Amino acid sequence: GDTIEVGSYLMERLVQLGCTQMFGVPGDFNLGFLDYIEDHPGIEWVGSCNELNAAYAADGYARVNEGSIGALTTTFGVGELSAINGIAGAFSEHVPVLHIVGVPSTSQQKNKPMLHHTLGDGRYDAYYKAAQQFTIAQASINNKDTAAAEIDRILTECVVLARPVYLMLPTDLVSERIPAKRLKTPLNRTPPENEPDVEAFVLDEIVKLVEQAEGDAIILVDACAIRHSVKEEVRELFKKTGFPVYAAPMGKTAVDETEDRYGGIYVGSISQPEIKEKVESAKLIISIGALKSDFNTGNFTYHIPISRTIELHSDHTRVQFAGFPGIGMKRLLPKLTARLHSFKEGADKLVVPKFGQPVPQDSDTTITHEWLWPRVGEFFKPKDVIVAETGTSSFGILDVKLPSGAVFVSQILWGSIGWTVGSTLGAAMAAKERGLNRTILFIGDGSMQLTVQELSVMIHHGLTPIIFLLNNSGYTIERFIHGMTRKYNDISNWKWTHLLGTLGGEEGKNCHSYIVKTREELSRLLDDPTFAAAGKIQLVEVMMPMHDAPRALKVQTELTGKSNRYSLTQQT
Amino acid sequence: GDTIEVGSYLMERLVQLGCTQMFGVPGDFNLGFLDYIEDHPGIEWVGSCNELNAAYAADGYARVNEGSIGALTTTFGVGELSAINGIAGAFSEHVPVLHIVGVPSTSQQKNKPMLHHTLGDGRYDAYYKAAQQFTIAQASINNKDTAAAEIDRILTECVVLARPVYLMLPTDLVSERIPAKRLKTPLNRTPPENEPDVEAFVLDEIVKLVEQAEGDAIILVDACAIRHSVKEEVRELFKKTGFPVYAAPMGKTAVDETEDRYGGIYVGSISQPEIKEKVESAKLIISIGALKSDFNTGNFTYHIPISRTIELHSDHTRVQFAGFPGIGMKRLLPKLTARLHSFKEGADKLVVPKFGQPVPQDSDTTITHEWLWPRVGEFFKPKDVIVAETGTSSFGILDVKLPSGAVFVSQILWGSIGWTVGSTLGAAMAAKERGLNRTILFIGDGSMQLTVQELSVMIHHGLTPIIFLLNNSGYTIERFIHGMTRKYNDISNWKWTHLLGTLGGEEGKNCHSYIVKTREELSRLLDDPTFAAAGKIQLVEVMMPMHDAPRALKVQTELTGKSNRYSLTQQT
Ligand SMILES: Cc1ncc(C[n+]2csc(CCOP(=O)(O)OP(=O)(O)O)c2C)c(N)n1
Ligand SMILES: Cc1ncc(C[n+]2csc(CCOP(=O)(O)OP(=O)(O)O)c2C)c(N)n1
Ligand SMILES: [Mg+2]
Ligand SMILES: [Mg+2]
Repeated sequence: GDTIEVGSYLMERLVQLGCTQMFGVPGDFNLGFLDYIEDHPGIEWVGSCNELNAAYAADGYARVNEGSIGALTTTFGVGELSAINGIAGAFSEHVPVLHIVGVPSTSQQKNKPMLHHTLGDGRYDAYYKAAQQFTIAQASINNKDTAAAEIDRILTECVVLARPVYLMLPTDLVSERIPAKRLKTPLNRTPPENEPDVEAFVLDEIVKLVEQAEGDAIILVDACAIRHSVKEEVRELFKKTGFPVYAAPMGKTAVDETEDRYGGIYVGSISQPEIKEKVESAKLIISIGALKSDFNTGNFTYHIPISRTIELHSDHTRVQFAGFPGIGMKRLLPKLTARLHSFKEGADKLVVPKFGQPVPQDSDTTITHEWLWPRVGEFFKPKDVIVAETGTSSFGILDVKLPSGAVFVSQILWGSIGWTVGSTLGAAMAAKERGLNRTILFIGDGSMQLTVQELSVMIHHGLTPIIFLLNNSGYTIERFIHGMTRKYNDISNWKWTHLLGTLGGEEGKNCHSYIVKTREELSRLLDDPTFAAAGKIQLVEVMMPMHDAPRALKVQTELTGKSNRYSLTQQT
Repeated sequence: GDTIEVGSYLMERLVQLGCTQMFGVPGDFNLGFLDYIEDHPGIEWVGSCNELNAAYAADGYARVNEGSIGALTTTFGVGELSAINGIAGAFSEHVPVLHIVGVPSTSQQKNKPMLHHTLGDGRYDAYYKAAQQFTIAQASINNKDTAAAEIDRILTECVVLARPVYLMLPTDLVSERIPAKRLKTPLNRTPPENEPDVEAFVLDEIVKLVEQAEGDAIILVDACAIRHSVKEEVRELFKKTGFPVYAAPMGKTAVDETEDRYGGIYVGSISQPEIKEKVESAKLIISIGALKSDFNTGNFTYHIPISRTIELHSDHTRVQFAGFPGIGMKRLLPKLTARLHSFKEGADKLVVPKFGQPVPQDSDTTITHEWLWPRVGEFFKPKDVIVAETGTSSFGILDVKLPSGAVFVSQILWGSIGWTVGSTLGAAMAAKERGLNRTILFIGDGSMQLTVQELSVMIHHGLTPIIFLLNNSGYTIERFIHGMTRKYNDISNWKWTHLLGTLGGEEGKNCHSYIVKTREELSRLLDDPTFAAAGKIQLVEVMMPMHDAPRALKVQTELTGKSNRYSLTQQT
């Protein structure tokens, strides 16, 4: 038709962006909008158990359904504030998420009565102000005439900048009719052109440096290569140039880990020695989409001088010490590839380390990290989505070589524990959309306790992730930082194998729970074809020693502990 | 000693304020401080499953341990933001809570490295700015010389203003030594003196109005009478004057509900008819500590003209149309009582309605709200702490007359569901401190799903609340507002009676779960002395019809629905 209701307009834009799921929790101020969601054939309403989990799910969804966005709907005050940590995490890690908040009517916003979910002092803008800290754009729709333009503005920012945005939708405007015409023009999602003169100059500079380095260059891929959609361009670059390519932890699976020219994960001082040597001795490092946070860089231990570094980002470029604002990698990369393929012959001779660790063959029966990670590495299949929670899991998984087409999901900069439970839900839904394989989660017992209820939503929606619950009696990563034997790092032990059955599953029917205490038990399970087929949701409680951690974590926490200065001032 | 470490200083101040429990979750930036908590003999560390629940617990604790404050410790960014909805709720409902956040060292705060838990863009003040929206005072400790004064400043504001405050504690300052001398002076917690001339004038004005009303006055008590500690002064007032006294929902149990002069709950149009008639026909209403929010006033349907109203608040007074800033009720009330007791003889003759409903005796076996609430009313004992979650529970409980010394806990203005699970934990701990009786929670199935993991902390700490889980297949209160048969108001059904056993309890040993489907089954359980003795944590799943609600809720949601305008624009 010629006109469309505001609620429907928003839904249509989401469909155009490839968004197929809406997460969230009902509330008095969003119920009217939920009708539009429930009635829309193209978008499924996924009722979350709570709003934080909904935000986590939208984030996980956006990461796996690359190129689309994640979306959640919450209610004024109580709902949106519960989600704010999830939104901040999406901001920190460059994930495009739309947070729609059902808010009081435009007249209530003017008259400011003491409604429930208000602060009681008439400040109706407090939540908006908080949201400004954690979103890249905000819109408070207060007029049907500007509603469509406002929606389009923040959605464009969301997609182009790959960051969360915030939308206040008042109860009285949801069903107002507006012209539908704008919908015929899809939102512009391409980044702006690079200024041609500057771009040409930058290309020349880079080529000059590669020449000076006599083609001894490596590529280092990081998070923003994924988030700003240049995975294809990066692939072209290393395929055509032959330069060895490595990934930072947050860039894991930006490059297919089975690629010949792929050398593994570089994390400064805590890298595997051969990788560290190869990266740090290269004459030139072409870094793509870097996010140099502590845990992503081995606590800032890159031993790479700036004079040997080129940094490509979504919105700027650095060549050694020179910055070039506005020169974005999406458009620069293909041109760079075209200029550099003459180096291929030489570069092909650069040795790339063999990535991945063998499974230790000693006679120990205990499931240690040293054994666990190489062993589960053998279990992974092409196109699996592999989610790792902050804690021993996110460190342990790094050294595992993932199969072709696998997608790695973790939150290494923000590091909010419990995040993976929600994000696994979103990731599993996006995996279906994209025709990916199984969704497999590794999570600590401590982290699971923060957001456990979202397992119920997975069951309810018939998702079939495999969940490895590492039971090491508490917050092991924290023990390594400080308080190895402190009580505050203990948690209460749950009957983990009863969880799925309690949260709405029927054990043996639509869910299955296991406990494994030895290497043999776990190996047997991993080799079981029914288990591996992931036909129902499965939870495996893996019993592990309290004081065991992956190698990389031990080194990392030593470094962190030092900068926190606890070790200098406090006995543990 | 002459000096004390900053961490210990803070602990000592909390002890002086009567705070006995610290809630929270460990994190890299607070581990050093947690040592001080774990080692302190006077304060118990209560490790929460997540930070939102910790904030809820601190809030519930502060409400029941009247005169003290609630406290929680979280970690930078991820932890504190998870708690922010709980803090905002404490702000909204005037609850004194201290939120301690472990933050990066002072040098890291200056140099702003891209640490984990940061936004990745160097903004180290974003969380502080968000916290400013929801706390009454903030301190970012950045110097040991000002640490003690800063701690004292915000704790004083917390106690005097009965609102949450925010404290950033950097890793490197926790163990710095500072002079201990200040600790000898307890924090000043008395509100400021009223300006004598103004106070005298106000007293005269009020007495004049009471005379004009010929002593036909009633007292209406609300939330801030509890939060600003004037329960004793209010008691004196109605005892000495004989004026009938009523409570708003948020003021329930500010006055002992067994008092002769107590007439029950006034909620505007949705009050019981006799109460409405008595309150609205009184010639003068003395309102004490009012918070006139929608759900606390029957959607703003007080039929009481301002010309018949006197309002006493913690920091100001209103007499009819005149405002008197700075004239606070704590000091005004005793003087008012002294001036008004001559009216007693006349006031004693004012009829007070008999509060409370009889248990319906019809032959229906279904557990309906109409039957449930009067029936559980018979189960309550003196000094029970009764917690009611937003939803059908918070409405149903209102008409129940609670026994002597009972404490009612609910969140009627903020109304964040899931809040009661955390707050029951805190309330149960405070109840022990204060020598109160059982802690009894009424909560809907929908609300329980938001924060369910905190049951595990109750089990772990040996608390023995009785939890009535009203299973009505989803968000019934929302159905009454909008979407009676909508799928978004459904939730997935859990095996509720397996919960305690899964979350660390041993069914029959330290926990017990029941399911009741008929009035007879529930009655039998309530009459069972072992059950009533509450020797272990108990969960009762109460099966109820999906489309049944308490009378007050039905009326209230009709009123809310209208102002949300859904009914005008959308078919349900
Ligand atoms: C929301 C949030 N709260 C607290 C923390 C601090 N923290 C980081 S890791 C961790 C412990 C994780 O324990 P677990 O999941 O059992 O992992 P493990 O290291 O034992 O495998 C904690 C408490 C955090 N990162 N995020
Ligand atoms: C944090 C939060 N999210 C959402 C809401 C909106 N809300 C208010 S009541 C309610 C449903 C409560 O359902 P339930 O606990 O089952 O109560 P009942 O069915 O007894 O009404 C919801 C979703 C809220 N108040 N707070
Ligand atoms: Mg653990
Ligand atoms: Mg319900």
